Amino acid sequence: MQIGMIGLGRMGSNMVRRLMRGGHPCVVYNRHGEAVEALRSQGAVGTVSLEDFVARLTKPRAVWLMVPATVVDEVLAQLVPLLEAGDIVIDGGNSYYRDDMRRAAELQQAGVHYVDVGTSGGVAGLERGYCLMIGGEKDIVRYLDPVFATLAPGVGTAPRTPGRHKPDASAEQGYLHCGPVGAGHFVKMVHNGIEYGLMAAYAEGLNILRNANAGKRSRDSDAETAPMRNPEYYQYELDLPEIAEVWRRGSVVASWLLDLTAAALAEDAELTGFSGRVSDSGEGRWTALAAIDEGVPAPVLSAALFERFASRGDADYANRLLSAMRKQFGGHDEKKEGR
Amino acid sequence: MQIGMIGLGRMGSNMVRRLMRGGHPCVVYNRHGEAVEALRSQGAVGTVSLEDFVARLTKPRAVWLMVPATVVDEVLAQLVPLLEAGDIVIDGGNSYYRDDMRRAAELQQAGVHYVDVGTSGGVAGLERGYCLMIGGEKDIVRYLDPVFATLAPGVGTAPRTPGRHKPDASAEQGYLHCGPVGAGHFVKMVHNGIEYGLMAAYAEGLNILRNANAGKRSRDSDAETAPMRNPEYYQYELDLPEIAEVWRRGSVVASWLLDLTAAALAEDAELTGFSGRVSDSGEGRWTALAAIDEGVPAPVLSAALFERFASRGDADYANRLLSAMRKQFGGHDEKKEGR
Amino acid sequence: MQIGMIGLGRMGSNMVRRLMRGGHPCVVYNRHGEAVEALRSQGAVGTVSLEDFVARLTKPRAVWLMVPATVVDEVLAQLVPLLEAGDIVIDGGNSYYRDDMRRAAELQQAGVHYVDVGTSGGVAGLERGYCLMIGGEKDIVRYLDPVFATLAPGVGTAPRTPGRHKPDASAEQGYLHCGPVGAGHFVKMVHNGIEYGLMAAYAEGLNILRNANAGKRSRDSDAETAPMRNPEYYQYELDLPEIAEVWRRGSVVASWLLDLTAAALAEDAELTGFSGRVSDSGEGRWTALAAIDEGVPAPVLSAALFERFASRGDADYANRLLSAMRKQFGGHDEKKEGR
Amino acid sequence: MQIGMIGLGRMGSNMVRRLMRGGHPCVVYNRHGEAVEALRSQGAVGTVSLEDFVARLTKPRAVWLMVPATVVDEVLAQLVPLLEAGDIVIDGGNSYYRDDMRRAAELQQAGVHYVDVGTSGGVAGLERGYCLMIGGEKDIVRYLDPVFATLAPGVGTAPRTPGRHKPDASAEQGYLHCGPVGAGHFVKMVHNGIEYGLMAAYAEGLNILRNANAGKRSRDSDAETAPMRNPEYYQYELDLPEIAEVWRRGSVVASWLLDLTAAALAEDAELTGFSGRVSDSGEGRWTALAAIDEGVPAPVLSAALFERFASRGDADYANRLLSAMRKQFGGHDEKKEGR
Repeated sequence: MQIGMIGLGRMGSNMVRRLMRGGHPCVVYNRHGEAVEALRSQGAVGTVSLEDFVARLTKPRAVWLMVPATVVDEVLAQLVPLLEAGDIVIDGGNSYYRDDMRRAAELQQAGVHYVDVGTSGGVAGLERGYCLMIGGEKDIVRYLDPVFATLAPGVGTAPRTPGRHKPDASAEQGYLHCGPVGAGHFVKMVHNGIEYGLMAAYAEGLNILRNANAGKRSRDSDAETAPMRNPEYYQYELDLPEIAEVWRRGSVVASWLLDLTAAALAEDAELTGFSGRVSDSGEGRWTALAAIDEGVPAPVLSAALFERFASRGDADYANRLLSAMRKQFGGHDEKKEGR
Repeated sequence: MQIGMIGLGRMGSNMVRRLMRGGHPCVVYNRHGEAVEALRSQGAVGTVSLEDFVARLTKPRAVWLMVPATVVDEVLAQLVPLLEAGDIVIDGGNSYYRDDMRRAAELQQAGVHYVDVGTSGGVAGLERGYCLMIGGEKDIVRYLDPVFATLAPGVGTAPRTPGRHKPDASAEQGYLHCGPVGAGHFVKMVHNGIEYGLMAAYAEGLNILRNANAGKRSRDSDAETAPMRNPEYYQYELDLPEIAEVWRRGSVVASWLLDLTAAALAEDAELTGFSGRVSDSGEGRWTALAAIDEGVPAPVLSAALFERFASRGDADYANRLLSAMRKQFGGHDEKKEGR
Repeated sequence: MQIGMIGLGRMGSNMVRRLMRGGHPCVVYNRHGEAVEALRSQGAVGTVSLEDFVARLTKPRAVWLMVPATVVDEVLAQLVPLLEAGDIVIDGGNSYYRDDMRRAAELQQAGVHYVDVGTSGGVAGLERGYCLMIGGEKDIVRYLDPVFATLAPGVGTAPRTPGRHKPDASAEQGYLHCGPVGAGHFVKMVHNGIEYGLMAAYAEGLNILRNANAGKRSRDSDAETAPMRNPEYYQYELDLPEIAEVWRRGSVVASWLLDLTAAALAEDAELTGFSGRVSDSGEGRWTALAAIDEGVPAPVLSAALFERFASRGDADYANRLLSAMRKQFGGHDEKKEGR
Repeated sequence: MQIGMIGLGRMGSNMVRRLMRGGHPCVVYNRHGEAVEALRSQGAVGTVSLEDFVARLTKPRAVWLMVPATVVDEVLAQLVPLLEAGDIVIDGGNSYYRDDMRRAAELQQAGVHYVDVGTSGGVAGLERGYCLMIGGEKDIVRYLDPVFATLAPGVGTAPRTPGRHKPDASAEQGYLHCGPVGAGHFVKMVHNGIEYGLMAAYAEGLNILRNANAGKRSRDSDAETAPMRNPEYYQYELDLPEIAEVWRRGSVVASWLLDLTAAALAEDAELTGFSGRVSDSGEGRWTALAAIDEGVPAPVLSAALFERFASRGDADYANRLLSAMRKQFGGHDEKKEGR
């Protein structure tokens, strides 16, 4: 089934490759010619003109957007006037599901269908397949099934879940029609919120292991600081790369994120290439907002989010306030170093 | 290599089976004859007399304890007098690493070696193998290597980590000598602390998905309660079993815990068999204590722990206090139902 | 200065009383005649007709709304058509500041000024005075100064802050023009967010004190539950009402909320009249949303919010999931009682 | 009643002054002569010899220690051999209550009584009085009553709690016999744990207010970073010193800590003299440990504690791990600046 791809970054280009391997002819568009050229050499029809792109697609056209969430509206403003009733736009990026709802309503005016696809898999997706969380009209999603089936990992990539008895369900292939428009990105949003929590769990735990030698460090003690009471219990020098590796097999905490952690630690246990300013790309925030709107407790997911904010220095003023209060009531000068 | 096993619960019995499959003769002891009988029929030498058990082991004896952490001292009190210098005791249960340190020092008086092994794998371990985190003397741990290698999953159970260049390291087999006595249980303790965080991340996220229909519910609104501002954004009825399943392939949140979650949801999406009183078995608490002792932030791991406490009603008095304060300053009567 | 009051609940009626004591003539309106009658007997001009209410106000009219946030729009829809250019509407309730911004723009069409006032003080405000956080146009806010000054507590109700050198500033009286429209309710929103955090700090701490006797309780111990390691350290029976009382004088944690806590505990240390379902009225949620939007860490304020959600049972499904996962990997049946 | 004071830092010296004002003769000891001299000039009997100090005390001697928790054992080792059966040692510092229990048992061997007093009030205590939380034997504590009554603030320093009917209780004076030895420091420990939570609530809230102008800052947006969706809602420039001041009168969040915050902000709204490395002196950690031991949820108090750890850089490795994971799955390079 022919598919048109707009946005040839890491994700978009790899998805085109996977689609072509699966036998789907691809028409690709990008503002910059390089990425287009690379895919053309691998069999795609490529163009740097949006008009040309649309013209080369057979009707009803299926156009997949794989662009930053912030430029989707801009791309749609250029693209939609070139489309016709019955065409389909798929947003495979990280859009906020509320934007999906608005955009679907706008495109409906022109008879154009809108499908939102939350896509997980990252740079490994080309080989590993992409997990797809899909929102949109039932028959349109069904029509696109061959595309989703090719992008998804396939049932063989994990053992079957015991007790399941839905043999035809696509979830086992790695893609799922979650509900009406927006449902795909809603599920992907929470997926990423969970991801933040998982990442933080590993990071905190490994940090505790790393400091299992804390009893060896002298800690200042004065009226302001209590010394460690039992330094004899914190004398271990633990090998973090080996620990991450050993957990990968047989343990309850085995996961793909752990695999990646082991790979990062195998490369450099000290992680000297990183300063520790952790980005967040929106979904973690939106997940927390959804929890609050729904009245659902999310202390772990929100703590993981706030750790990222703090990693970027955004707690600094609050911390200065704490030191200022301590000075007010106790006359304590802030300590410049040490713990 | 012959091994003696004390404690034939789910874990101990399965480990004996895995060891025997691997060619290690096993002598087993349990107070209750049934479990002994079951293993005897599968090839183990079994006994309900501790003296007999010790007598049947060749020297130096290797005795593996797989008993609740709370009875280890009691078992040692009976066992150690029967042992001789050079014998080895392995505690494969969930002991606190500080107890390991104390016990190792005590056994050393009698010339008996002590090895602590944090064991992860649960009921699936018989087939999947056990992840083993080991603490103790270097040569003793090396001596026991064949036992560990058989219990562990083996390198083939996960893809190799890119960038690793320690071909002989046991971590890839699924077992690791972490350090001196206590180090095994220390690493296992933090492993379980991480497990709490991972579990909470999934649980919170799925709860948010489950409430994606919150806009359909009427919410009381009065001077005390703000209504939902945007009910149109919370109209989704999501299929949790299918979502857990779809994440199992290709997604960033894929993990063994997710596999288990999918299995639990496939069985009963409403989880009606559970009331939501979540137990904790010690390691999560000890991990939080270690973080505090070390001065390492663990907001996610501790939030996961406190959720469990609260699930058992241990926040009730604090909550009544909050309602009492609200009544004091605002005259608000506590609402009996609704959100 | 004449003021018209709409909404004669606890808050509105008491504010009218305080204004009349301060010499401001008040015209009051309520749908139900009882509250009107009560204030009429104390000197107010009262009416159950909105037309009559507006007619009795001298121009430019100053109308103070003290109604639930959810009915403000409804009231404005009836009221504004009766007003004239130059009149002033003051929303003294708990509106979301984003609604203020929208309403101010709407009223501006009719030449009507809009002022938002976050009001703190609760049922004690009649005697103690109200803390007022004000947003709106500079000259309109200045025009209303006599009203604010009367409602506010006055400088004498707290010792002067050392180091301040803004003798004319109203903040020392207990009211403040915070900024343009919405700023008053924005500051009040965060004020309440802080309030949630403060309340939770006391509630958690007192719960820890209440359980200082935990070592006296037997705790089940089995493979699943670690026993308390040091019961000898948790043998205290502490008198919570007396502790709350002693902290009221000289301690770092003295506060008005503590005064209220002491009063609640003096009444009933067991708080048997409360079930522990803690309401939240919006501002705590909005504060957390603001933190997330701004990218500012708020782990304490959000934890306090989520505790309230959990107190109402909204973590139950997440907790059942945790128990279900435990059963999957460890075969653990959920425990029905005990800790 | 004569009292001997060891430790003439800020706290100890001021307590001596308050005792002397109250008519209690004081004998003071310090290793360094300066502090001794200062108090001698104000009427104390002073000495730099411990033997001399003990000799000048009338029997039964009452010796108050006001020294860092870490040197208490050292001081006791020198002091106790000089004492006689019936003498009393009072530890007024920040000792861990478990040390109290051990020390009381040790001193009992020599017939010396041990009283633990958690003391709150800080540098303001001289004028404001000290809040005293006391543990020890009933008759010994009663014997020391005149000393406690003088140090405490007195009933007049706060309005009476409505509903109380314990006219003779000392809690209203600001001191309380909480229970057997250790109970005083246990209550003080939790008091400080609460203090951490209160401080964090104010600090987080004020940080949110400070960033109410976040919509004015441009935020990078790319595939990795979502832009702020509603910058129009974050355009306020709020005056933090004035806001802290206005809350001091009539509001629900009024407290002594807020008074201090207002003073700090009046001095320097930017708090440029502080870097934001927040110390913790032990009690906050011990409170969290107690919550965990007791199985009582303390998400707010522990979040406040962990914020302090993070303020000192102790989350850095965990944060680098998060960035490393993001690079692994998404190919994202860590951003060096911006949000």
